[in-house]
Amino acid sequence: MDVIEVIRAKRDGGELTPEQIDWVIDAYTRGRVAEEQMSALAMAVFLRGMNRAEVSRWTEAMLASGDRLDFSDLDRPTTDKHSTGGVGDKITLPLTPTVAACGAAVPQLSGRGLGHTGGTLDKLESIPGWRASLSTEEMRGVLDATGGVICAAGTGLAPADRKLYALRDVTGTVESIPLIAASIMSKKLAEGTGALVLDVKVGSGAFMKDVASARELARTMVDIGNDHGVRTVALLTDMATPLGRQVGNALEVAESVEVLSGGGPADVVELTVALAREMLAAAGLAPGENGVKDPAEALRDGSALESWKRLIRAQGGDPDAPLPVAAERRVVLAPATGTVTRLDAYRVGLAAWRLGAGRARKEDAVSFGAGVTLHAKPGEEVQAGEPLFTLHADEAERFERAAQALEGAFEIDPDALYEASPLVIDRIA
Amino acid sequence: MDVIEVIRAKRDGGELTPEQIDWVIDAYTRGRVAEEQMSALAMAVFLRGMNRAEVSRWTEAMLASGDRLDFSDLDRPTTDKHSTGGVGDKITLPLTPTVAACGAAVPQLSGRGLGHTGGTLDKLESIPGWRASLSTEEMRGVLDATGGVICAAGTGLAPADRKLYALRDVTGTVESIPLIAASIMSKKLAEGTGALVLDVKVGSGAFMKDVASARELARTMVDIGNDHGVRTVALLTDMATPLGRQVGNALEVAESVEVLSGGGPADVVELTVALAREMLAAAGLAPGENGVKDPAEALRDGSALESWKRLIRAQGGDPDAPLPVAAERRVVLAPATGTVTRLDAYRVGLAAWRLGAGRARKEDAVSFGAGVTLHAKPGEEVQAGEPLFTLHADEAERFERAAQALEGAFEIDPDALYEASPLVIDRIA
Repeated sequence: MDVIEVIRAKRDGGELTPEQIDWVIDAYTRGRVAEEQMSALAMAVFLRGMNRAEVSRWTEAMLASGDRLDFSDLDRPTTDKHSTGGVGDKITLPLTPTVAACGAAVPQLSGRGLGHTGGTLDKLESIPGWRASLSTEEMRGVLDATGGVICAAGTGLAPADRKLYALRDVTGTVESIPLIAASIMSKKLAEGTGALVLDVKVGSGAFMKDVASARELARTMVDIGNDHGVRTVALLTDMATPLGRQVGNALEVAESVEVLSGGGPADVVELTVALAREMLAAAGLAPGENGVKDPAEALRDGSALESWKRLIRAQGGDPDAPLPVAAERRVVLAPATGTVTRLDAYRVGLAAWRLGAGRARKEDAVSFGAGVTLHAKPGEEVQAGEPLFTLHADEAERFERAAQALEGAFEIDPDALYEASPLVIDRIA
Repeated sequence: MDVIEVIRAKRDGGELTPEQIDWVIDAYTRGRVAEEQMSALAMAVFLRGMNRAEVSRWTEAMLASGDRLDFSDLDRPTTDKHSTGGVGDKITLPLTPTVAACGAAVPQLSGRGLGHTGGTLDKLESIPGWRASLSTEEMRGVLDATGGVICAAGTGLAPADRKLYALRDVTGTVESIPLIAASIMSKKLAEGTGALVLDVKVGSGAFMKDVASARELARTMVDIGNDHGVRTVALLTDMATPLGRQVGNALEVAESVEVLSGGGPADVVELTVALAREMLAAAGLAPGENGVKDPAEALRDGSALESWKRLIRAQGGDPDAPLPVAAERRVVLAPATGTVTRLDAYRVGLAAWRLGAGRARKEDAVSFGAGVTLHAKPGEEVQAGEPLFTLHADEAERFERAAQALEGAFEIDPDALYEASPLVIDRIA
């Protein structure tokens, strides 16, 4: 097989054959197709697209490049969630122990990521003692004992994706729906879950800015999952506004614990319950039957919180230890009285990043305590001179640029009748 | 400047700014933009195109990456020709001494190339003693003394193009009109010629298979040349049929000497004279005025042949020494009687390549003696059982696959009224 022929086929708008896809992914993983050849192919895929058969095969080839975990011998069905990421999206933290408390097992491999805040693993690492790296045996042990595990993907899973993602990141080929879908799904299929719920975010704070693109990504991923025997469902959810009131690493852990304790912001609770119900349904579990609990009930009766504590302890963490706090805080006051009609997720995310909550390069450390607390969300009233948001950072000199990012992020209207938009926009199965 | 922003701009169909183009070519040449980033950009250019301003600037940036020769202090105007390449295209060999004999100076930097036969330098290297590598001082000396020089481009000229061409070759991004045009023109502008005639080939044996693409390439290159103060004209010429009767390295040298001696095949003579007249005109020289000779006259009166001998000797060659011949020959006979109505250039080129006249990899050597002699060309009569073509190779085992390539290359029709198509299809100025 000749890589230039494969590149040309896609460049000229053709469909890649299964054999071409298998060969090129394998040869790239082994270093027999050069980085510059793969990036040319990635750009051709970006501009020419791939059809369902091609994306499915591309995913399978990346999956085949490494190990695939298998938890089919557990005494409970496995189910997992993946979010395409958004500002304040801490949902994995309350969701995983809630679903575990309801009767399913959640084997979640997660990432650190380059974003406005850290990834799920960074957030959890703000809990003293908690560790993300587990061997496959440890992962199985934690999952079996607690019904949930959240850990870093080993290098043996979908190594082709790891290599290709790093390449796409530096070659302007990230924002391709088939490549995004194949990347996410190859990792999720490798993790061995039996069912999968995708939370595809739409809006200023998300990767997908419009509903049409988000729907296309969701449809592509749902098809790949189902093509590979994993029952897959997607929710399209709103990311025009941050989720919850806390954006940052330890700040989001604290808010997650509020939700697990039966409180917390309404949007975080709503999305946690909606996703948990989808995860149970995808795993074939119906609340009320065979001791399966409804997620809302698990949040209310303390069983989700107990499940959280077990999960954290099983990975070395102390769920009762104080969380890190930032050395410096600045409170910004509302400039006017009225109803908050808009709170731009992108700008809040940028502010959190400037405060130190995220990283610019893989090697950077995140600040656990940094972030933004939102004192008012869309639909709520504020009085001029009352706190609008609080900035948290380890260095006071970060506040200025963070506050600049937030300028214009809020709209306050003295008269406006605020009309809430739905959090869950669509469901794709 | 951020390379990912530049890639994204082109990927999304935008126009690159002069600053972006200058920066990316310079950074790539210095190794600060990685190969995989440049190949992604090349693919985006391939699929999105570049407009006249972008191609012109891209060429200028590649030109600026190295030295630019200057022969403006010579006592004669300089003029050069570039061909996009075809089967049997030995025209540079008779053309350069002919134009020199007429009164202009031809400073030609040429290449070896990966084709069905070697490039111009490979052909000339079949002449005992002749050497292609000259320092800039030697080049100037030969040009001044003989009115012509054909030598290898030094590594100091357009190094960006050298690097980019090697990258395009392995990433499926060769066949892009803006990238081809910028590559050719950056080298031709660097060589310091004052006028330039482009021979853009069209047909099965050429890079451009259809007239529309060839015209677009010609127009793009003519615009670049004129944008940079080099008077540039292009002829679109037919490459459905090989030029002349000899395809190979030494075989083409021998045929060129026939033409320089006032004989040779009509098509080679016609194209040599047409291109020579364009080169003189582009240099501002009119035959009959100030001692400028007409090219047809120079071929007839022996002055072009004398000029050839001076050129060859000035670069160490012996123009009277016997040329290399292949160790083995095979004559293939005509299977039928009639008029040759078609002779496919691509298949003849493939046969020559299989006989050893060309190379597959840069490191390969070419066979000087290998090639194909065509005993009949379109419009000529053949008798069944008479020689149709002769194959030349150093190893007899090459004949079988070469003969296979030639199956179906000839069409012989007992009744057909052959209608010749013009050799020069169009002129673009």
